[in-house]
Amino acid sequence: MSQDYQGFTLWFTGLSGSGKSTLAHHVEEALRARGIRKIEMLDGDVVRTNLSKGLGFSKEDRDTNIRRIGWVCEVLTRNDVVAIAAAISPYRAVRDEVREKVGRFVEVYVECPLDTVVARDVKGLYEKALAGEIKNFTGVSDPYEAPLNPEVVVHTGRESEEESMGKILRALEELGYLPHEM
Amino acid sequence: MSQDYQGFTLWFTGLSGSGKSTLAHHVEEALRARGIRKIEMLDGDVVRTNLSKGLGFSKEDRDTNIRRIGWVCEVLTRNDVVAIAAAISPYRAVRDEVREKVGRFVEVYVECPLDTVVARDVKGLYEKALAGEIKNFTGVSDPYEAPLNPEVVVHTGRESEEESMGKILRALEELGYLPHEM
Repeated sequence: MSQDYQGFTLWFTGLSGSGKSTLAHHVEEALRARGIRKIEMLDGDVVRTNLSKGLGFSKEDRDTNIRRIGWVCEVLTRNDVVAIAAAISPYRAVRDEVREKVGRFVEVYVECPLDTVVARDVKGLYEKALAGEIKNFTGVSDPYEAPLNPEVVVHTGRESEEESMGKILRALEELGYLPHEM
Repeated sequence: MSQDYQGFTLWFTGLSGSGKSTLAHHVEEALRARGIRKIEMLDGDVVRTNLSKGLGFSKEDRDTNIRRIGWVCEVLTRNDVVAIAAAISPYRAVRDEVREKVGRFVEVYVECPLDTVVARDVKGLYEKALAGEIKNFTGVSDPYEAPLNPEVVVHTGRESEEESMGKILRALEELGYLPHEM
């Protein structure tokens, strides 16, 4: 892949436990396998460590967090880096604000029914949220506003990871952000 | 300039009113004039808008702010962007931590005597700080720890801007970050 590859932002949104981060990391690997070298992953861990310290879970703080991640994506994208963000990002308006600023923005809605994420409860957070031990928990005591026109929708409750990956990579090819595989 | 130009971070540190931001912007222009296209400016305005909301002026919050700017510089530098930061960054330890993480890091100590910045008092902040109306003001009621081994020292109290600019550009050339001018 030539070095004048153009950047874009791949933004995963969905409930906690829907599989955003896993999928994002596997897409990163797939893009590297296709020869893209400049990729930055902004998942929960990276964001907590480097950007969001001091912010809580009020709507205002969540919006600040998303604007901040969005700004980093914007800066990376305009410098020809592929930015991959995986954040619950529950509010539509601020996601759309980020989309507007970034320009080359691909929204992946990681759809998974609440029942399914609650049943899986990988981190044990839904149990606590349902017991009222965690306040402002998206999907339980805080809203999640699904995207109206995302570039990609994956259904991690009923699709295999291969299917979801295939949808994302095809969308990137169709949008002209990724050359078709030989 | 070819596109495989390597990134680095140019970090301006010094008292409020010492001239960090002005100098940083003029260096940015000079680098663009030399053909470097990928440059991101992280000055006070950019940082306040996009990164530091919610942080105050305690040592802990200042350190968080500098770590956050430093992380953005690190990400940009490793993706071959020139990151220019202009921040008071009063504490030596956290500047050195950023230096360590970034790797290709050029520290510019913008030295200006306190008397001079107080006399200029461009933003009227020193008057307020000296009157006790602003707490934790660097140089007045909060420490400034000058760098021990900065790559460049400029003395904005007694040098012309041309002299200061010349020092910075020569240092970048000598460090191999900037090709010598024809």
